[in-house]
Amino acid sequence: MPLAFNIESRCGEARCGRLLTPHGEVETPVFMPVGTLATVKAVPQETLEELGAQLVLANTYHLYLRPGVEAVCEIGGLHAFMGWERALLTDSGGFQVFSLSPLRQLSEAGVEFRSHLDGSKHTLTPESATDAQVHLGADIIMAFDECTEYPAPRERAKESLELTLRWAARSKERFEEKKHEVPWRANDLKGKTQALFGIVQGGMYMDLRRESAGRTVELGFDGYAIGGLSVGEPRALTFETLSATLPLLPQDRPRYVMGVGTPEEIVEYAAMGVDMMDCVLPTRAARHGLLYTSEGRVNIKNAAYARDERPLDPGCGCRVCARYSRAYLRHLYASGEPLAQVLNSLHNLAHYLDTMRAVRHSIKLGDLSGLLSGVRARVNSKA
Amino acid sequence: MPLAFNIESRCGEARCGRLLTPHGEVETPVFMPVGTLATVKAVPQETLEELGAQLVLANTYHLYLRPGVEAVCEIGGLHAFMGWERALLTDSGGFQVFSLSPLRQLSEAGVEFRSHLDGSKHTLTPESATDAQVHLGADIIMAFDECTEYPAPRERAKESLELTLRWAARSKERFEEKKHEVPWRANDLKGKTQALFGIVQGGMYMDLRRESAGRTVELGFDGYAIGGLSVGEPRALTFETLSATLPLLPQDRPRYVMGVGTPEEIVEYAAMGVDMMDCVLPTRAARHGLLYTSEGRVNIKNAAYARDERPLDPGCGCRVCARYSRAYLRHLYASGEPLAQVLNSLHNLAHYLDTMRAVRHSIKLGDLSGLLSGVRARVNSKA
Repeated sequence: MPLAFNIESRCGEARCGRLLTPHGEVETPVFMPVGTLATVKAVPQETLEELGAQLVLANTYHLYLRPGVEAVCEIGGLHAFMGWERALLTDSGGFQVFSLSPLRQLSEAGVEFRSHLDGSKHTLTPESATDAQVHLGADIIMAFDECTEYPAPRERAKESLELTLRWAARSKERFEEKKHEVPWRANDLKGKTQALFGIVQGGMYMDLRRESAGRTVELGFDGYAIGGLSVGEPRALTFETLSATLPLLPQDRPRYVMGVGTPEEIVEYAAMGVDMMDCVLPTRAARHGLLYTSEGRVNIKNAAYARDERPLDPGCGCRVCARYSRAYLRHLYASGEPLAQVLNSLHNLAHYLDTMRAVRHSIKLGDLSGLLSGVRARVNSKA
Repeated sequence: MPLAFNIESRCGEARCGRLLTPHGEVETPVFMPVGTLATVKAVPQETLEELGAQLVLANTYHLYLRPGVEAVCEIGGLHAFMGWERALLTDSGGFQVFSLSPLRQLSEAGVEFRSHLDGSKHTLTPESATDAQVHLGADIIMAFDECTEYPAPRERAKESLELTLRWAARSKERFEEKKHEVPWRANDLKGKTQALFGIVQGGMYMDLRRESAGRTVELGFDGYAIGGLSVGEPRALTFETLSATLPLLPQDRPRYVMGVGTPEEIVEYAAMGVDMMDCVLPTRAARHGLLYTSEGRVNIKNAAYARDERPLDPGCGCRVCARYSRAYLRHLYASGEPLAQVLNSLHNLAHYLDTMRAVRHSIKLGDLSGLLSGVRARVNSKA
C-alpha cells in the first residue's frame, strides 16, 4: 500500500491518525491550504511550515496551463519546483474544467475545453489527467471525475456518476501503467509511488451517493474523496450527503471531502469522520478583508477598526496577532497595500490550521463536545 | 544632542559609525528601505528585521492623506502603528507634493495641493509639515523643502534654494516649539525628542550647492541631507554635486543623500562619505521582475529562466536564494502571483542591505578598493 494510514484515536465517528506519504507524515484530520499555481496565494513556503501546514493542494488544471506539466516534471516534480518538501496533493482538473473553462464539450472520452487564459483548445481525459498528475508528482493524486452540478435532475446525476465510475476505472488502469514515471529524484524515494484516490459523486440523491460509494470502493483506491459538495447546495444537504456516504467508505482508508468549508464546518465534518479537507476560503476571504477569529468574523475594512489598537484575535498566537493592531491591518487593506494580503492570509490560515489542531487534540482526549458546542454557538449567533 | 553619532572607522572619505536614535542604534553607512504608507511594500516587519534593516523611511505626504496623522498619533506614533521597534525616518512631504500632486500652488507660506487619491485640497507649510512629522513620531524628521526640478535655470535654482532656506529656519523654529508633542509612550523614551535634519538644494549649480550647504549648516541641524538629486540628471552630475557639497557638511554629523540609488551607486556614495541613503528601487524593481544579484541584473520574466533550476543568486544567503529556483520565481512572476512580489522584494532588499553590510565591513578593514572595482566592473559590463 503506497499510503499507510494509522488511526490512533477515535471519538464517536471522528478519528485521529497518521498518513504516511512519501514526503512525510500527515496528522489527520488535516486541513490542506490550496496552492492553486504551486503557491498558496501571498504565503511563502517557509511561512506555511511555520504555521504547521502538512499537506498542500495544487490544481492540475492551472498547472497544466501554466507553467505546463513538462516544465514541472523536468525539474523533478512539484516538490522541487515549489521548494516544498512536505506532502502535496493534486486534484484531477475535472472540477476546474467545469467551473473555469468558458467552453467545454463532454464526451465518453473526456473533456475538450478552452483555456480561461488565452482561449486555446485542450483535452483532458482520465488518461491524460492521470499522466499529468503522475508527472507533476504530488504524493496523492485524484481520479478524473465529472463534478455534478447543483441542482441536477436525478437522471443527470445518475449518468454523471456512471461516467465518473467509468473514468475512475480508466484513471486507475492508467495509473498502474504510468506510476513509475513519477519524477522524484531523491534516493530515498526510489521505487516509491503516489497514492490514487477515487471520488464519490451522485448529486444530492442519497441512494445514488450510496451506489457511487459502494462501486467506487469496489474499484479499490488508496483513499476516497466525496466530491460534488459545496457547489451551492444548502448546508443541511451537505450534512445529509456526508452522513449517507461516510459509513460506506472503508474505515481503514482516508476520507477526503473536497472544497470545504468554513472554520465551523471543518470541525463538524471532522466530527463526522472526515480525515482530509481543503478550501480556498481562508486565503480568498483574506484577500477580501474577511478575517476569521476565535470571536467570530472580522471585516477588517470596517471604519470602526481605524483606531483599534487591539490585536485582530487576542486568542490567536500567530505572527500577525502577536505584532499588528487592527488599526494597522485596516490601514493596509484600505490602502490596497500588498502586505494586507500577506498578513490576512497568514492569519486566516493560522486560524484554520489551529482549529484542526484543536480538533485532533480533542479527539485524542476523547471529547469533541466542547469544540462542537463552541462552533455551533458561533454559527447560531450569526443566524 | 538628540542624535549621537559616533564615527568609529574611516577609509578615505568613507566613514563607518553608529547613530544612536531613541529607537535603537543604526550602523552607518545605512541603506533605508522605503515604507511609503508605513509598510515596505509586500514585506512584513519581521522579515525586515531578519534582513537586518535598521532604519526605515516612511512618507509624510502619503501618511498625511491616509490614514491621517491623527490616527497614527493617537495610537502612539508610527512605531506603535506599524509594529516596528527599530528606528524610523519621515521625509517632509515636499518631494511628494511636487512629484505626485496633480495641481499645486507654491507661495512663501507653503504649498497648496490636491490629493492624488481623491482630488481634495490640502496645504503643507514648514509648520504643518513639522507638526505632522512630530505627531507621526519617527526618530529622524526632515525640514520642509522645495525639491528643485531638473533641469532648472540658475535663477530658478537660486530662488528655490532661498525659499528652502527660509522654510528650513521656519521648520527648525516650529520643531523647537513642538518637539515635546512626540507621541511616544514608552517610559524609557520620556523626555526624548526626535532629530531634525536640514536639506541642501541648489540644482546642478556647484556654487549654489556650496552656498546652500554653508547656510543650512549655519542654521544648525542634527544632520544634513542632500536633496534634489536622482531627479533625472546624468549620473556624472550627481557625483559632481556630491563632491561639491559633502566637504562643506560637518564631519561629525550624519550626511544623508535622499532617493538614491542603484546597488552600485550606493557603494560609490558611501565611499564619498555619505552615511545614509534611501531608495524605492529595490522594491519597485522587484515588482517589475528586475532582480539584483552579485552577478548583475536578472530580468526574471525572461523565458530563458523557465527551466532554470539554479537559485537566483548563488552568492546570496537570503531565504529566497536558499529555497527557490529561478524557474519558480519566473513562474510566479509570469502568473501574476502575489508571492512574486513578496519574494522578489525580499531578495532585492537582502541584496541592498548585504551590499551596505559589505561596505561597512570594508571600511572597518580600511580598504574599499575591492568593492569599488567590483561595482565599477559591473557598471562597465552593462555599458
